[in-house]
Amino acid sequence: MVTTDYSTGILQYIPFFYVIWSDDLLSASEISVVQKVIALDETLTSEEKKQLGNWLHKDRPPHDDEIKNWKQTIATSKVKLIESDTYPLTSLSQRLVKNEELNEQLKHIEIHLGIQPNHYNHLFDVEVVHEKTSDEYDADVLDTILKGEHAKEVDGFRKFLEKPDFAWEILRDKDEFRNRVLKQVQLLGEAGYGAMAYPDAYGGTDNMPAYAAIFEHLMFVDGSLAIKFGVQFGLFGGSIQKLGTKKHHDQYLTDAGETKLLGCFAMTETGHGSNVRGIKTTATYDKASDSIIIHTPGKNDNKEYIGNALHSKMASVFAQLIVDGKNEGVHAILVPLRNENHETLEGITIEDNGYKLGLNGVDNGKIWFNNVKVPRQNLLNKYGEIKDNGLYFSSIKNPNKRFFTMLGTLVGGRICVARGALGGSKMALSIAVKYALNRRQFNDNVKVQEDLIMDYPTHQLRLTPKIAGAYVYHFTLEDMMNRYSDDSQPDKRKIETQVAGLKSIITWFANDTIQECREACGGKGYLLENRIADLKGDVDIFTTFEGDNTVLLQLAAKGVLSDFQAEFNSAGFASVLKLLQSQLSDKLTAINPMYSNKVDAEHLYNPKFHKHAFDYRTRRLTYTLAMRIRNYIKKGIPSYQAFLKVQTHLLALGKAYSTEFAYTIFCDHCEQIADLKYRALMEKVGCLYALDQINSDARWFLEQGYIGNTKSKAIRQRVERLSTELRPHIEVLVDGFGIPGHCMSAPISK
Amino acid sequence: MVTTDYSTGILQYIPFFYVIWSDDLLSASEISVVQKVIALDETLTSEEKKQLGNWLHKDRPPHDDEIKNWKQTIATSKVKLIESDTYPLTSLSQRLVKNEELNEQLKHIEIHLGIQPNHYNHLFDVEVVHEKTSDEYDADVLDTILKGEHAKEVDGFRKFLEKPDFAWEILRDKDEFRNRVLKQVQLLGEAGYGAMAYPDAYGGTDNMPAYAAIFEHLMFVDGSLAIKFGVQFGLFGGSIQKLGTKKHHDQYLTDAGETKLLGCFAMTETGHGSNVRGIKTTATYDKASDSIIIHTPGKNDNKEYIGNALHSKMASVFAQLIVDGKNEGVHAILVPLRNENHETLEGITIEDNGYKLGLNGVDNGKIWFNNVKVPRQNLLNKYGEIKDNGLYFSSIKNPNKRFFTMLGTLVGGRICVARGALGGSKMALSIAVKYALNRRQFNDNVKVQEDLIMDYPTHQLRLTPKIAGAYVYHFTLEDMMNRYSDDSQPDKRKIETQVAGLKSIITWFANDTIQECREACGGKGYLLENRIADLKGDVDIFTTFEGDNTVLLQLAAKGVLSDFQAEFNSAGFASVLKLLQSQLSDKLTAINPMYSNKVDAEHLYNPKFHKHAFDYRTRRLTYTLAMRIRNYIKKGIPSYQAFLKVQTHLLALGKAYSTEFAYTIFCDHCEQIADLKYRALMEKVGCLYALDQINSDARWFLEQGYIGNTKSKAIRQRVERLSTELRPHIEVLVDGFGIPGHCMSAPISK
Repeated sequence: MVTTDYSTGILQYIPFFYVIWSDDLLSASEISVVQKVIALDETLTSEEKKQLGNWLHKDRPPHDDEIKNWKQTIATSKVKLIESDTYPLTSLSQRLVKNEELNEQLKHIEIHLGIQPNHYNHLFDVEVVHEKTSDEYDADVLDTILKGEHAKEVDGFRKFLEKPDFAWEILRDKDEFRNRVLKQVQLLGEAGYGAMAYPDAYGGTDNMPAYAAIFEHLMFVDGSLAIKFGVQFGLFGGSIQKLGTKKHHDQYLTDAGETKLLGCFAMTETGHGSNVRGIKTTATYDKASDSIIIHTPGKNDNKEYIGNALHSKMASVFAQLIVDGKNEGVHAILVPLRNENHETLEGITIEDNGYKLGLNGVDNGKIWFNNVKVPRQNLLNKYGEIKDNGLYFSSIKNPNKRFFTMLGTLVGGRICVARGALGGSKMALSIAVKYALNRRQFNDNVKVQEDLIMDYPTHQLRLTPKIAGAYVYHFTLEDMMNRYSDDSQPDKRKIETQVAGLKSIITWFANDTIQECREACGGKGYLLENRIADLKGDVDIFTTFEGDNTVLLQLAAKGVLSDFQAEFNSAGFASVLKLLQSQLSDKLTAINPMYSNKVDAEHLYNPKFHKHAFDYRTRRLTYTLAMRIRNYIKKGIPSYQAFLKVQTHLLALGKAYSTEFAYTIFCDHCEQIADLKYRALMEKVGCLYALDQINSDARWFLEQGYIGNTKSKAIRQRVERLSTELRPHIEVLVDGFGIPGHCMSAPISK
Repeated sequence: MVTTDYSTGILQYIPFFYVIWSDDLLSASEISVVQKVIALDETLTSEEKKQLGNWLHKDRPPHDDEIKNWKQTIATSKVKLIESDTYPLTSLSQRLVKNEELNEQLKHIEIHLGIQPNHYNHLFDVEVVHEKTSDEYDADVLDTILKGEHAKEVDGFRKFLEKPDFAWEILRDKDEFRNRVLKQVQLLGEAGYGAMAYPDAYGGTDNMPAYAAIFEHLMFVDGSLAIKFGVQFGLFGGSIQKLGTKKHHDQYLTDAGETKLLGCFAMTETGHGSNVRGIKTTATYDKASDSIIIHTPGKNDNKEYIGNALHSKMASVFAQLIVDGKNEGVHAILVPLRNENHETLEGITIEDNGYKLGLNGVDNGKIWFNNVKVPRQNLLNKYGEIKDNGLYFSSIKNPNKRFFTMLGTLVGGRICVARGALGGSKMALSIAVKYALNRRQFNDNVKVQEDLIMDYPTHQLRLTPKIAGAYVYHFTLEDMMNRYSDDSQPDKRKIETQVAGLKSIITWFANDTIQECREACGGKGYLLENRIADLKGDVDIFTTFEGDNTVLLQLAAKGVLSDFQAEFNSAGFASVLKLLQSQLSDKLTAINPMYSNKVDAEHLYNPKFHKHAFDYRTRRLTYTLAMRIRNYIKKGIPSYQAFLKVQTHLLALGKAYSTEFAYTIFCDHCEQIADLKYRALMEKVGCLYALDQINSDARWFLEQGYIGNTKSKAIRQRVERLSTELRPHIEVLVDGFGIPGHCMSAPISK
């Protein structure tokens, strides 16, 4: 029995019921929100409450004709939907029944079901007053939250970047481009930004975290600038700071910070990309002349891809240190490359690497050394030195440990690379969102204007989870840099493996994001003037340099495995193994079917669920990996080969661990946001990130029986829904990244 | 009871059992192969047969200590493994027992289990004589299979490309680059390659399929060349050929083919990227002067991204044709752009689009028309004309059908775009594989040399399925072009939707492949000299131009939906719907658990399984999509909005359908390969493609209950295993693409 003759009490609920039932995504908890509201609504008679209640059975939804009638009722009323109302749906509803006051209970539904105009505006035939974006949140507040403790430095730096020297322009010729970037680096050095992370005595403020924040901002100017800046101050200057001792600091550090001394960081070799321990360059101590002889033994043992190689006067060269015939392992030595007239010194050959896919403002080159002699004092001797008596000495006796200690000091660079990649993603997302809020395409013939492309569900789905990722990784990297810079924790091994994993997932995230933004802007995204193309070319190599991602992920995974072993070693590995097989595998595989099919919004949106899923994945992958390796080894297969056989498993574990780690940091950080309204927004953003991550690995969770088919589908729907729910705030979210207006030069982002 | 004292009969099986049991990937069918061999082996006593049989229980595998003993036995024997032996493992085995003759039964195991040296060489402590690649297959034979009917044209063209004018070089300045590419296009035009697809009377051979094959080859020279070539001969010349009539052909076609007349194809507008029907440019017939007035009404209604815009004398302009005040829909009109001195004609404004991410040798520009007058005869009037009496006439009365008929003639261009993307993938894969067969990294300390990176499982997994994809899509596109060129089938609507889908999945495939190759080559892949960087920048936009992929996939999906509706309409839609709900959903959801957990190699490798899975996916997605749309519409939601709500579902269907379609064509093609050895290789390649596709959508198949957890894992393992099995032939597989040596200029591919 269908009627169009509704009482006032019923009528005011019609727009809500129409919105709720027009789609099929209504969970039990959402029904209960509406039920409670109806029970408390004093404007309703008990008869009306009963009738409304009848329309709230998930298993017995209102008849299609009923829903059509609701639609008809709203359409014929000629009431307008005004999106800029604070409670648009409640307001529409009250105009429908000609009420002046808003019904508090309806407002309650609107808030608690998170119903947004973009969910339902297309459902109504009424005129819709569109707003491009909501003003519920303020981008400046978000920006302040992101800046955290570095607000002063960041604000000053943004101002500094207004100089015309930092205005973006297209320079195709590499020499012209490199000269411009060099000039920019010099300006930054002279203004004290290069030395930021150095001690006060050398022109700095000893503030590595603030250095990382401004480093990210350089990506808004140009990728080449960021990288050349990083090479000069972070790698070259950083190696002097971290691997050298006071004599080196006194002699070089201030000059490096002010760009009076330009230098490069010569580690990678053509033949040995990711295997630093296997480099072939030798540094042989010659007692007679009390000097060190740097030599490139073979044609392919040259230093490769060395940034700043063409502008540098000096290099920090990594080589096998040989003292008295014994190889003491890899050490860094300062080697002058050119004289005052910028002529290459004897025995040194430098070749330009030529044009690249991106970063053409960075002068990468190859360097060969032919028995180049430098004083013994040039050895950066913090962790290993040659004494006056010509003997080698290191306080770290274990060569393995010594090597990793030296490398560990350079982890800050990896955090910066990830930070730079993140900056590139923020920039691309800002451009793509601005474009999508201006560009219209296709349309319903009824409408006068074509739709904004930001209103397409596929468009929301491709950009919104990436924005969520950018927020999560921002806080993750801030936190990692604080831990890394905390001198009260001298052992950085744990941080090193964590950073290895984060650098990988974040640089891959950045590449995916920038590519998605390029495609989201269509042909416009392909034009250099719109900046995304350059970001794409520049950030691409971030997955390879400062450690190839696949190699780093294996490092991260091995770190997890060691922890796992340590955990059980304390109780004796052998004795625990038996227990493991029954107990652990039980605990890990037997997931309660109630849990694996729980699809309630509360459950799916609850960080406890996300954390449980992430933790389950990490532990399960660790356990199965450990068992596989153990089985291979038991059969006599050498451990090197066993690790080769489980390589893809290692990568999966590295990713799983890093994702869990990033999300945990983000959640902890959210709890510290004082303003509850913004905390809630950030929690929603975090929820989207977590569900999107679980969604993209749903196959694995399904295989394990951790989630059932229904839950898998529900997770996908929730990702789509959250992306849509955040649509009104999407411009505020990208503005929250705080990219200065003078850096947003892309015509399509205006 | 473990012993190291084995009889000769047992001993000869030890290397096989060691290889088989060292990993855990042994299916029932594989066990049965070994069992049969043992039963037939006359060199064995019945006691030995019994003992060997005891080592063949999947549920009760040999003890780890037993396996260790096997290893020990082999190691102490000092017998060498020689990979270049025809039966390396059988040979090793026979040397172990000092037999001269090879045991036929052991050879049988080696062949039928597909055991390759790279599966097991790492298991032995013995010295291994490595071979970079196997010579079992001949790349020339593969190349001949790929060239198919166009061998003559392709061979001639490869030779033609040896001219120094086609040697690759870096040109950063766009004007310099564009001039060089223009010169190349002119050379090709003069040699008759431009006109290849035109009728004999106009300098051609009427051979569109051969044209597509040489078009692909242009990607080996340079992406800009391919695109400018396509614009001049395919789009500009093609529009005259396909949309014009004899008078246009006589006047322009020969000149277009010889590049005496340079032209462009002005369809896309800034404000209306993918919505051709919504373009704003008008072509108004003025009866008084018997001419057509071309006009750009608004600032953003200019023609955008028009290739060849700066070099052209004439444009084929798409505009709303208005005759006697009535809009007759989109038509193409030839509009002169410049005079003999290359000065822009009155009323025409052309602006350079500037630098792009790639394709900087193509002169893209924007064009505005300010009441430009052209003779009535310039209307390309095959499908719609203005009669002498000033009235509009078309033999196709339905404007909708007319529009799609005109657009349908341009589908050949989309096939070529996909073909070009495919060529880019082949090039990148060839470079990456050559590099991986030369580059060594890390190592086991025991070995003298570091491992070839091609020997890493992760590396095999990242490149091999892509190579398989390139083979599958090669045959798919060949076939599509044949169908498109078949004039006995004038209705191209079906082909048009199929091509829309294929263009999308293949251009995305190409981008993924090139990116994977870039990363697989590390920093070397980032250098322009190594070609992958340029391919990446060039091919990137292929996903957007000639129809944005997301738009095209929706077109493909809607095609499938119409077929679906037609299928049931014949029996009356309404009456079938009831049946559908019970019958179809039953048929689709209830998968026999025996089937969903069948993990045997025979089953997983059988094309019947792949086709069943693809067909199931397409039908299920179609059914659920149709039901969703129907439910929305029943609730009164307008169909435009309903389609918006199911957008992601549409994309999934478009992809599923296209993948199934490509694989079906490939399988049909395989059956026509006469040489059974090569047919088997191609079938293996196809199997890898299919399993990789199922693997990458395993989440969906799991959600539907089509595959169970075990099967999902087994599929992943089989993808890895097939990638490893193809390792010995990987160089032959990329050489089979037939890229001429003079095009392989990348230093890392030498």
